[in-house]
Amino acid sequence: MKINYDKLYDISMLINHDMPVYKGKEEKRPLLKPVSDFASGTVYESKLEMNLHTGTHLDRTLHMIPEGNTIETLDFKELITKCKVLDLTSVKNKITAKDLSSKDIADGDFILLKTRNSYEKVLEGDFIYLEQSGAEYLVNHRIKGVGIDALGIERAQPGHETHLQLMEKGIHILEGLRLKEIEEGEYLLFALPVNIEGAEAAPVRAVLMDFNN
Amino acid sequence: MKINYDKLYDISMLINHDMPVYKGKEEKRPLLKPVSDFASGTVYESKLEMNLHTGTHLDRTLHMIPEGNTIETLDFKELITKCKVLDLTSVKNKITAKDLSSKDIADGDFILLKTRNSYEKVLEGDFIYLEQSGAEYLVNHRIKGVGIDALGIERAQPGHETHLQLMEKGIHILEGLRLKEIEEGEYLLFALPVNIEGAEAAPVRAVLMDFNN
Repeated sequence: MKINYDKLYDISMLINHDMPVYKGKEEKRPLLKPVSDFASGTVYESKLEMNLHTGTHLDRTLHMIPEGNTIETLDFKELITKCKVLDLTSVKNKITAKDLSSKDIADGDFILLKTRNSYEKVLEGDFIYLEQSGAEYLVNHRIKGVGIDALGIERAQPGHETHLQLMEKGIHILEGLRLKEIEEGEYLLFALPVNIEGAEAAPVRAVLMDFNN
Repeated sequence: MKINYDKLYDISMLINHDMPVYKGKEEKRPLLKPVSDFASGTVYESKLEMNLHTGTHLDRTLHMIPEGNTIETLDFKELITKCKVLDLTSVKNKITAKDLSSKDIADGDFILLKTRNSYEKVLEGDFIYLEQSGAEYLVNHRIKGVGIDALGIERAQPGHETHLQLMEKGIHILEGLRLKEIEEGEYLLFALPVNIEGAEAAPVRAVLMDFNN
């Protein structure tokens, strides 16, 4: 087991009050509050208040399905896995089955969708998302997980069809990835969520390792 | 690069309101608050409020040193590293230089201290900690990081000598590890903190991989 430190990439968002949040909603902005400092004591300590869908995070099915599952029932080993980054930066609005049809996607893959979201300031607005036909295509190819460089894997779907199709098949959903530096190809993904009992989502410090070189 | 999934271990604490917290302080207990549910809408979402020294976490030097460094300046690659777990479960109260002297500790090691804390309900009280002479011993052996199965690496040190000795040498400090299932030996450690800008500490979902088998 050898780590190639030149081929390790952080694909996580930096958490601060001014970061992009879903639809720019104020209540999704994290707050970091000092609770002790050197004026009042001998240590500096902070408290974080954060919506669990802010920044890079893993969704669990409770997010969309009553009686759905939560973070602590996840087998963490499923988030240490080979993955394929697909370059979809030419997609203008939403990722459809057609956009995916030219890509090499196989049974058991964990797919990361790289889009214009990693380059342009669209995260709080008209970000690129996975449309229903795209989700269906991935379900039919029996993938085990999907990640995207948007704060939502869907947008403007009142029925949440994309989330639901994926979740009903137990397909993991990672949101808020940063893939600008990552070329299309195969990697090893480490995307372990903080183990928050009862939570429908949790923050992840996600990294990729290129094991081909 | 091959992952042996039978030799992967989660060494992180489960986060919930009833978990052990430093000295049992109520304000250190995490709060998970629903902000949207299926009675009021079509999604379930929560917000987490948590002291950053609760659960498994990485300290940065701002915790103890004014003008100290914070999470976002960390090179995450330093927390993907070989490490040595030392069995110190026979230590009764605190880990001293003498307790460490029989162990194999070398320049550049990342050391994880396994103690009675991983077995007994002492985390909120008289937990085993790294005493000043133990910290000095590790500094003299030029280790690059140290982790412990306590919520503080020190206890009952008004001058915070253990933290300060380690931090002044840039030695990483991981707290809140769970090492009950882990035998003494060498492992690969993944201990990446959530990337919170300006924070003196951050939650980590830490895992070990046994690469000897």
